[in-house]
Amino acid sequence: MARFIKKSSKTKGLPPGTLVHIGDKKTEKTEIKVIDYTSSNLKEFVCKKADECFTLKKKNSVSWINVDGVDDVELIGKIGENFGIHSLVLEDIVNTDQRPKIEDHEKYVFLVLKMLHYDEINHETKVEQVSFILTRSCVISFQEMKGDVFDAVRERIRSNKGRIRKMGADYLMYALIDAIVDNYFLILEKIGERIEDMEEILVDDPSPKTLQKIYNLKREMVFIRKSVWPLREVISGLVREESHLFRKTTNVFLRDVYDHTIQVIDTVETFRDMVSGMLDIYMSSVSNKMNEVMKVLTIFAAIFIPLTFIAGVYGMNFENMPELAWQWGYPMVWLIIIIVSISMLAYFRHKKWL
Amino acid sequence: MARFIKKSSKTKGLPPGTLVHIGDKKTEKTEIKVIDYTSSNLKEFVCKKADECFTLKKKNSVSWINVDGVDDVELIGKIGENFGIHSLVLEDIVNTDQRPKIEDHEKYVFLVLKMLHYDEINHETKVEQVSFILTRSCVISFQEMKGDVFDAVRERIRSNKGRIRKMGADYLMYALIDAIVDNYFLILEKIGERIEDMEEILVDDPSPKTLQKIYNLKREMVFIRKSVWPLREVISGLVREESHLFRKTTNVFLRDVYDHTIQVIDTVETFRDMVSGMLDIYMSSVSNKMNEVMKVLTIFAAIFIPLTFIAGVYGMNFENMPELAWQWGYPMVWLIIIIVSISMLAYFRHKKWL
Amino acid sequence: MARFIKKSSKTKGLPPGTLVHIGDKKTEKTEIKVIDYTSSNLKEFVCKKADECFTLKKKNSVSWINVDGVDDVELIGKIGENFGIHSLVLEDIVNTDQRPKIEDHEKYVFLVLKMLHYDEINHETKVEQVSFILTRSCVISFQEMKGDVFDAVRERIRSNKGRIRKMGADYLMYALIDAIVDNYFLILEKIGERIEDMEEILVDDPSPKTLQKIYNLKREMVFIRKSVWPLREVISGLVREESHLFRKTTNVFLRDVYDHTIQVIDTVETFRDMVSGMLDIYMSSVSNKMNEVMKVLTIFAAIFIPLTFIAGVYGMNFENMPELAWQWGYPMVWLIIIIVSISMLAYFRHKKWL
Amino acid sequence: MARFIKKSSKTKGLPPGTLVHIGDKKTEKTEIKVIDYTSSNLKEFVCKKADECFTLKKKNSVSWINVDGVDDVELIGKIGENFGIHSLVLEDIVNTDQRPKIEDHEKYVFLVLKMLHYDEINHETKVEQVSFILTRSCVISFQEMKGDVFDAVRERIRSNKGRIRKMGADYLMYALIDAIVDNYFLILEKIGERIEDMEEILVDDPSPKTLQKIYNLKREMVFIRKSVWPLREVISGLVREESHLFRKTTNVFLRDVYDHTIQVIDTVETFRDMVSGMLDIYMSSVSNKMNEVMKVLTIFAAIFIPLTFIAGVYGMNFENMPELAWQWGYPMVWLIIIIVSISMLAYFRHKKWL
Amino acid sequence: MARFIKKSSKTKGLPPGTLVHIGDKKTEKTEIKVIDYTSSNLKEFVCKKADECFTLKKKNSVSWINVDGVDDVELIGKIGENFGIHSLVLEDIVNTDQRPKIEDHEKYVFLVLKMLHYDEINHETKVEQVSFILTRSCVISFQEMKGDVFDAVRERIRSNKGRIRKMGADYLMYALIDAIVDNYFLILEKIGERIEDMEEILVDDPSPKTLQKIYNLKREMVFIRKSVWPLREVISGLVREESHLFRKTTNVFLRDVYDHTIQVIDTVETFRDMVSGMLDIYMSSVSNKMNEVMKVLTIFAAIFIPLTFIAGVYGMNFENMPELAWQWGYPMVWLIIIIVSISMLAYFRHKKWL
Repeated sequence: MARFIKKSSKTKGLPPGTLVHIGDKKTEKTEIKVIDYTSSNLKEFVCKKADECFTLKKKNSVSWINVDGVDDVELIGKIGENFGIHSLVLEDIVNTDQRPKIEDHEKYVFLVLKMLHYDEINHETKVEQVSFILTRSCVISFQEMKGDVFDAVRERIRSNKGRIRKMGADYLMYALIDAIVDNYFLILEKIGERIEDMEEILVDDPSPKTLQKIYNLKREMVFIRKSVWPLREVISGLVREESHLFRKTTNVFLRDVYDHTIQVIDTVETFRDMVSGMLDIYMSSVSNKMNEVMKVLTIFAAIFIPLTFIAGVYGMNFENMPELAWQWGYPMVWLIIIIVSISMLAYFRHKKWL
Repeated sequence: MARFIKKSSKTKGLPPGTLVHIGDKKTEKTEIKVIDYTSSNLKEFVCKKADECFTLKKKNSVSWINVDGVDDVELIGKIGENFGIHSLVLEDIVNTDQRPKIEDHEKYVFLVLKMLHYDEINHETKVEQVSFILTRSCVISFQEMKGDVFDAVRERIRSNKGRIRKMGADYLMYALIDAIVDNYFLILEKIGERIEDMEEILVDDPSPKTLQKIYNLKREMVFIRKSVWPLREVISGLVREESHLFRKTTNVFLRDVYDHTIQVIDTVETFRDMVSGMLDIYMSSVSNKMNEVMKVLTIFAAIFIPLTFIAGVYGMNFENMPELAWQWGYPMVWLIIIIVSISMLAYFRHKKWL
Repeated sequence: MARFIKKSSKTKGLPPGTLVHIGDKKTEKTEIKVIDYTSSNLKEFVCKKADECFTLKKKNSVSWINVDGVDDVELIGKIGENFGIHSLVLEDIVNTDQRPKIEDHEKYVFLVLKMLHYDEINHETKVEQVSFILTRSCVISFQEMKGDVFDAVRERIRSNKGRIRKMGADYLMYALIDAIVDNYFLILEKIGERIEDMEEILVDDPSPKTLQKIYNLKREMVFIRKSVWPLREVISGLVREESHLFRKTTNVFLRDVYDHTIQVIDTVETFRDMVSGMLDIYMSSVSNKMNEVMKVLTIFAAIFIPLTFIAGVYGMNFENMPELAWQWGYPMVWLIIIIVSISMLAYFRHKKWL
Repeated sequence: MARFIKKSSKTKGLPPGTLVHIGDKKTEKTEIKVIDYTSSNLKEFVCKKADECFTLKKKNSVSWINVDGVDDVELIGKIGENFGIHSLVLEDIVNTDQRPKIEDHEKYVFLVLKMLHYDEINHETKVEQVSFILTRSCVISFQEMKGDVFDAVRERIRSNKGRIRKMGADYLMYALIDAIVDNYFLILEKIGERIEDMEEILVDDPSPKTLQKIYNLKREMVFIRKSVWPLREVISGLVREESHLFRKTTNVFLRDVYDHTIQVIDTVETFRDMVSGMLDIYMSSVSNKMNEVMKVLTIFAAIFIPLTFIAGVYGMNFENMPELAWQWGYPMVWLIIIIVSISMLAYFRHKKWL
Repeated sequence: MARFIKKSSKTKGLPPGTLVHIGDKKTEKTEIKVIDYTSSNLKEFVCKKADECFTLKKKNSVSWINVDGVDDVELIGKIGENFGIHSLVLEDIVNTDQRPKIEDHEKYVFLVLKMLHYDEINHETKVEQVSFILTRSCVISFQEMKGDVFDAVRERIRSNKGRIRKMGADYLMYALIDAIVDNYFLILEKIGERIEDMEEILVDDPSPKTLQKIYNLKREMVFIRKSVWPLREVISGLVREESHLFRKTTNVFLRDVYDHTIQVIDTVETFRDMVSGMLDIYMSSVSNKMNEVMKVLTIFAAIFIPLTFIAGVYGMNFENMPELAWQWGYPMVWLIIIIVSISMLAYFRHKKWL
């Protein structure tokens, strides 16, 4: 089973704003990738050194600086310093145990979201923290590791599809949030399928393995919920607050993302309802099976125990047992045995146990 | 079991506002039916081409344009363009996985509702999304498939019964919402009957099949609730907001629909309460049955096991067993057997197990 | 078991405001009884025709027009027309599946309440809808059937006891609401007694019948709750709203009824808590009983199974079994049997199973 | 088990404000005790007649009139009349089934609280209603019976300890409320001890008696909660409302009582959590015990049943059974028996059932 | 099991503001340690007498007066008097059964928090109350016993690390709160590990010991929750209220602590969810195990009971049993036995019980 609890004890006792990475070391090397575009131009490159991207700050083009890996605290510190980001914000970026949240620091907006990955092999959902810094013309995204759900956004930028190249950094920000929320639907679809598969075996063929699976599902729902629930507040904050960094035209799109978020939360709650009902059904199912086993035992025991007694009686060695000498004694015993068996069976049928 | 989870993964990565149908393909061919009326005139026709209905926009008569089937995204796009509907709204129309909601876009009101169908054969409730666009003089309704709950409204328009022909598009809108909400009562009646039928077999004759049925009921309640619960907000939004598209005279009717919605939600909650209590009762019932089986086994075993032992004792082949040679040995054993049996029975009766 | 689900499907598709009676036909014939009084005069009569009571509208005396039976929709329609009541209100009067609610229509106040009856024979609570129309000088009450909880009010009017004859129609309205709420205490007392009776047999002597009773109680609480819960809102609405039809002097009495309502809801919740805990106790009790049965079986089986084996061994027919020929062989076997039995009993006593 | 449901049916149908005592008759004779004090003087006496205390109303000293017993409705009525108390308030005083509440009637404040008594013999908590009337210079307290939690307050007045003699009637009021709330801590301590005692026997030695005790605890928590929960609102009402009868200096003390009330409610909720978890633990414990019993049965049966079969085989009387004539036949059978037994035991050990 | 209920009965009946220590006596001797610093100077000393620290009040340096032990009520009283602290506040300091809370007394802020300790030996969490008085230049902290989570703060002050020496008493206050909240993460990590360990043995190897452990976890979560939950309100109070004792620059840090508190509460709720699900899983697991045991018993009994019957039949001593004389009688019986066994096994395999 995946371990969900992160070691946050490392920061204990350090002054606030000290950068200490919390979470599993997930990347080999931190990599900074930049996409810089206007409606007519597009530049895409990998920064070998952090300094290379600092010039983007002043350009009028829209820049998306994507940092894969947050365990190189020195690098994060340098970026933070250069873009004028508060040290407590940087601390939140490297501490990957944050709740989704939004903070408006006037000159920039800080956003923490959770990106979900579905591990097809172990049938498990994994959580990755993505932090965003939105300034007038830049979006800086910090991911725990390589691999994300933003490829479609990149493609749209490259191919100049849709309105993305014509809009500002706030629209890019929206597009990235939208990609994350859209991905939740995918994950929920996967979980929905598992739930429906489970439902079928639940009543027909419950096994201890099923119990384990239900527990895992329940556990996953707890963690997905933890990732998704605060999103509502975050995005509704974005919609209402009207930070000066978000243009009016972007607001209608944010409201669309908000609707999706509500839908995601709704589905999560529905799934939780379904999963939490499953355990009861499982127990009922198991109890039904046990009942059936008990019935068979009862019937066997109840039929043969008296018969064995009868046989035992005529196995006694008394000298004076007249039945033993009767000519029809033996057939008579068989007759008794048959009568007893049939009447027992009739009784059980009458009781509807058969 | 019907699958409730819809594939919403198809839109992944597309720019917002791209029309992609989400949901099962339910109709053969999209069909547009128009009813256009004033208090004195009535025209009813099927549009072969989408263009035929675009002229209605400017007429003073009330037009109800009903589109059966939302998988022909091109057609939906054309209608949307012509009536000036935002692309995100169109996206919501073809994505049949929406929550019920209302959006006021000044020039038109966009409404998503869920229509329930009861499948008499499989005893299952099915959900269909219906979207409405209300403009000054038009109601455009989009259904996933043919067959709906609006026949009574159509009949009232045709026969000029009640006030419907004298009122505007907003009243038509109300009449359609009312038809959907009224239909919920019908569905709940069906479910109520199933619940009451279940209640009777629950205590008397619980079987694994009952478990399956309870689970299905529970599951259906989850999905009906998901369809009905947001309705409260939607209709209360309509009542309070007083969009300029709704006249004052219609408001009193909307408030009536609101009351009905509350009643529906109330009933849904009551049913949920009842269904969720059922599983406990089921388990108690099953456990009672098992108890009874156990008692019979106990009584049989407890009576015959000692008797068999007695018979076994006198079946031993020791040379020196004086009882075997006694004249009254055999009857004596029978006496012991009878005494043991009777005292066991008395004990069990005393314990109230018999 | 009483059926609680009402057929509301009859109105399906009819224009709003069409009067269709929903509910069981409970009365033979609709009857209109009038009590008309001032502080000095009192007239009481039965209206043969609806028209007889229409003149009361304009009199200065306080008139209480009580209609028993709401299935004669024509009659209700006539009364409604004469008193200027909105058709949607009339629809709510004849549809006996309403939630308790209050509507202020300026010229009159419309109130729906639920009256509970306790059926002593089947130990069941029954629900009856009572609707009230309060105008300046009239209270019109609509009941589903004859028999109500208002006799004490009638008596107070007749005997001129208390202040009722000196006050207006609003006080009469209050007195009727108070009678209904007071009656809830009576009903809850009955249910409280049943709960306390149940509690006693629950631990001592649980049987499948008890399960049925618990379920019935649970179910009744669901329906009583449904009747009582919205009352809070209704009466608090009356207290706050200060409709011009209610004088200031009546307000203090309404606040008293409000307190009672809170008390009723409180008790209902307490009862729900107690009843919902009962099922768990029941299951524990049953499981305890089963345990006891199991123990007896175990002890019997565990003692006699080895003994029977010993007897079986010496029942074998081997030619060469030296024990069989020993003089003290047989007594020795009995000795072994006794030792085994005693040590088994000691073991079970040690395990505290005995 | 104590009966908690009170007969409130007696007032049914009476005009509002009619004084009818509801509750058990708890006192022999109603007794009025007065403590009248200023910072320098102290008078303490028992009123033989109600009239004796009416003169206190106009004095400047602080008077505490304590009435033990509320079933002498005539007396209560007389006091009410003399102090100008509304008849509905008097009705609430004699009806001992009230919820804790506060009512500000300008000239006086009316307060209903619940006093808890712990019955050490039956280990049960009992509830007594105490009503207070606070005027400018008087506190009138009405108790259901003799014996209360106010002795410490009396002592402080008599010995002139603390500030009580220097303050007004509002401080006396506070001191009495404080005594009641402080007493809750005592009661909760008792219950806490019972809970912790229970916890220990729960896992080690669950018996049907434990079940009964858990149920009683649960039930008591329901009733204590019902007494305590509304207190929050009541006292927060006192703190915020700033009735002109409460001086500013008393407010800080009231806020202290408020904190205590929150603490009490907190503890009650914690206890409820613990008690409600107990039943599950109980059932698990019982189920564990049953499991152990089952295992013993299984092991015995599974070992001896095959052995008995073997013995049975060689007890058969076939003429042609070569094994019977073998010289080592009998020892061989014992060998088989031993091998079977040991391999069974090994199997069970392997399965961890032993 | 640790006892959580504290004896708060000692204060019963005393005038408010009387100092009585409530809680276990945890320290040998009360000890007052002072750290007094400016950005350039640092003094650290132990006060032998309380008076030594009273002069600090007027100095401009920041003073942290830490009192270990609150059972010396006389000393606490003296400190309180000297710093002008209200007697009710002092009462709360020595009564260690408080809820976390904040009170703004203009001249000082009073704060009660709960510090958690993890006892590695008994795997138990222990709760200690810490009270703070914040004045313009002093922080006075009261702990129940020696040993705390503030060592890192002390180290930062001594080594002049971070900004702590440059800031005022309000920042020190923040640093102490932060240390307590950070420590919660540590505790939760420990509990998280126990939960994950439990999860693994839960499905594989449930034992009565596991039950005890689950119960202990549940119980601990109840008490941790009680300590942590009110913190939200307390710190949000600090953030919003903007007491004049807190500078603007400190507010951003408080908001950071607030975020951490939310995270802690979130984790506590997640853990509660997980723990409360565990009991169900435990019961299912146990029930699964029992099922397996039952199956083995059933199979053994069902196979051997008929075989024993067959053997019994041919052990009968009838004179006239032709089978006994048949030459192939004995092998035939063995054949029957083998056929019966195999067909039983086949039946059970078919039923999937094997």
